[in-house]
Amino acid sequence: MTEKFQPVKGTRDFLPEEKILRQSILDVLRKAFEEFGFSPLETPAIETWEIATKKGSSDSTTDVYREIYRFKDQGERELTLRYELTFPLARVIAANPQIPKPFKRYQIGKVWRDGPVKTGRYREFWQCDVDTVGSASLTADAEILAMYTKIFKELGLKVVIKINTIKFLDNVLSYAGVPPEKRNAILISLDKLEKIGLEEVVKDAKERGISENEIREVYKIIKDIDPENPDIDNDGIKEGLEDITELSRLAISMGAKNIYFVPTLTRGLTYYTGPIFEVFLKSGALSSSLAGGGRWDNMISDFMGSKEKVPATGTSFGLDTIYDAMLLEGKLEKQKTVTDVFVIPIKTKEYCLGVVRELRELGINADMDIMDRSISKNLSYANSLGIPYCIIVGHEELMKKVVKLRDMKSGEERLISLAVLKNEIKYPKRGKKPKKTK
Amino acid sequence: MTEKFQPVKGTRDFLPEEKILRQSILDVLRKAFEEFGFSPLETPAIETWEIATKKGSSDSTTDVYREIYRFKDQGERELTLRYELTFPLARVIAANPQIPKPFKRYQIGKVWRDGPVKTGRYREFWQCDVDTVGSASLTADAEILAMYTKIFKELGLKVVIKINTIKFLDNVLSYAGVPPEKRNAILISLDKLEKIGLEEVVKDAKERGISENEIREVYKIIKDIDPENPDIDNDGIKEGLEDITELSRLAISMGAKNIYFVPTLTRGLTYYTGPIFEVFLKSGALSSSLAGGGRWDNMISDFMGSKEKVPATGTSFGLDTIYDAMLLEGKLEKQKTVTDVFVIPIKTKEYCLGVVRELRELGINADMDIMDRSISKNLSYANSLGIPYCIIVGHEELMKKVVKLRDMKSGEERLISLAVLKNEIKYPKRGKKPKKTK
Repeated sequence: MTEKFQPVKGTRDFLPEEKILRQSILDVLRKAFEEFGFSPLETPAIETWEIATKKGSSDSTTDVYREIYRFKDQGERELTLRYELTFPLARVIAANPQIPKPFKRYQIGKVWRDGPVKTGRYREFWQCDVDTVGSASLTADAEILAMYTKIFKELGLKVVIKINTIKFLDNVLSYAGVPPEKRNAILISLDKLEKIGLEEVVKDAKERGISENEIREVYKIIKDIDPENPDIDNDGIKEGLEDITELSRLAISMGAKNIYFVPTLTRGLTYYTGPIFEVFLKSGALSSSLAGGGRWDNMISDFMGSKEKVPATGTSFGLDTIYDAMLLEGKLEKQKTVTDVFVIPIKTKEYCLGVVRELRELGINADMDIMDRSISKNLSYANSLGIPYCIIVGHEELMKKVVKLRDMKSGEERLISLAVLKNEIKYPKRGKKPKKTK
Repeated sequence: MTEKFQPVKGTRDFLPEEKILRQSILDVLRKAFEEFGFSPLETPAIETWEIATKKGSSDSTTDVYREIYRFKDQGERELTLRYELTFPLARVIAANPQIPKPFKRYQIGKVWRDGPVKTGRYREFWQCDVDTVGSASLTADAEILAMYTKIFKELGLKVVIKINTIKFLDNVLSYAGVPPEKRNAILISLDKLEKIGLEEVVKDAKERGISENEIREVYKIIKDIDPENPDIDNDGIKEGLEDITELSRLAISMGAKNIYFVPTLTRGLTYYTGPIFEVFLKSGALSSSLAGGGRWDNMISDFMGSKEKVPATGTSFGLDTIYDAMLLEGKLEKQKTVTDVFVIPIKTKEYCLGVVRELRELGINADMDIMDRSISKNLSYANSLGIPYCIIVGHEELMKKVVKLRDMKSGEERLISLAVLKNEIKYPKRGKKPKKTK
């Protein structure tokens, strides 16, 4: 019976018990983005097919194009649902040349991909993107790393930040004699090193047409490399490593912690041009990254068809993964409602209208019986929603100008005056597990 | 050149100067919704055609159906972009019978309509819906009115809340002998009474096939009616008026102000079943309503095909109209960035990385030069974005462990220590005009 009312395949309803927590994560992100001087941008969900596919025709991108939802409006325009927030940023930059640079913006919004649905893969999902457009400085990259540290500390998650640079990777490959056409294949294999070990990587690489010799040669170059003291006679590799050292130093000065150089880290191979970064749970309990990004100096000028480079760097946060990580690490407690206090009148409805009004004026999330239910039914309603406190007002309380405050967890009840109520309530930290009291 | 990069017809980009303010309005709404015990819900943008058109086939609704964006996924599912947030709520109720009632939810999200584009009409826009599902009590309606007062006070807008009931309107029409098939036409004309006056309404009604006699008869009944003391021998009309009186009384007890009974107010004629409400700017400077709603007791059970009624009441806030109203009334000041303080190093970059870090740790939105620009260029950048303060750090300041704080409006500069900086900054109230200092 309820089957036919389920959301469309690949999409999800978020009932309050999930939405409250997801929203609290977005609030933390937004606050940190703004503290780091990134301002909000909003672009439409609908973009033309022409704009959506303007970015280029590299392999990985074309794959994405196949997953674009496509339709026409009544004026026969070829439209799409955006599949990411990056090309809309490029479009905004192109449409608004007056915007002062650097342009630091964040955008939190949904994107859509008509792809295969599996665990952790949806057709409609949120992206939280932060980018600095117009600065080629490593300081702009470093800022992203410092922001990671601030955000994940705030969320209560212990993380490691892995970094690398495309410059280092590309120079290692050419130094090892890997032909350009094998670049992406070998890097994709190499990226699995930390997870599956060298021998499996060799097997994986072979299946991608890389010889055992090639992959072992690359591995030999990178395995013991020390970015601060590289023992190698190749200027390109040295420059890549200098970037790593400088990036770490700047990031640490800005507050970043737990940065690790991972010489096999690869991501967005057709896209990134400089430093790349990825954030993982320190415990390793989740294999997906919580956030990732890098420098992408070519895309905007390619998109605009302009000769002048528009350097950019940034990151994307995975709301679904962060949510899963926080649940896993016990940092979230599900709640079915935002209501902190539920008011139950016993033949004192008129008076209680004023009580609930006062609570709300105090900034307390308050609700009251609107069903004319009995006390026990009201208590059981409040209980089913996980509301932490009830206030019960009978004739006696009304006369004494007090209310009966019931702690729904302990069942403890006591009479107090409204004036002191605010200080008596322990607010559940929405999105955070309430701190244990000793 | 920039022409081809404009957003799709009927959609908009919101650059930071607009998005910051729009977001601040949404924050006010969200806070009030939660104080009133409404919890957030999220549903997908994509719904099936079958679900999207399940609601019924009344005239006004069918019009909306024509404006639905329609497409197929790769699995040939018939999909749509949601055109409102109400039917998705009905779907969620149907899909989750376990949800305790009353279910008080809010949803803030985009909706899409492929209709004509004109001033104030877009193809992609935000809806902010608040509804209580499962209570037939007037207290639930009253709560909405009290919430209006709280929200518009918080936004700094002086408003009037106009109310009426469908019960009153329908009984007046049958008492006046208006045949049912003319109901909607006459009510649509009557709704214009406040704006255009009786004689124009008579003309308008005639064009809709209503006789002068009919419209004057209805007008005669309602023109001097006093809901608290109705001089009329019709029980239906009396009951409608009793609802009005009771609703006002409850709402006022919960904190509502400026409620007016407007016997010609009509809205959502095929949709609402009880009290209806609409909020307007008191000054009359905008003719569109800022918010509106009412009781809709039939829709969910119709949608579910269930015999058991699922009563509901609620309201929708118009983000675009509220934004326009606030600009009009001078309640908003546009800002191109969220940054409060911009740090400019003079050969003190290393030190400044720590300064900007400290500012951010204090919760101040802070940014710094990432372009290695000269002081004057940095000041002009900060100025172009409207950043209120700059901090300039040269060697001398560094030695003295102070910073030079420059008020960008007055140009005043003084040396202060970072420790006291936080108290020295007057934060611009984002979304509110900064209070004038005497």
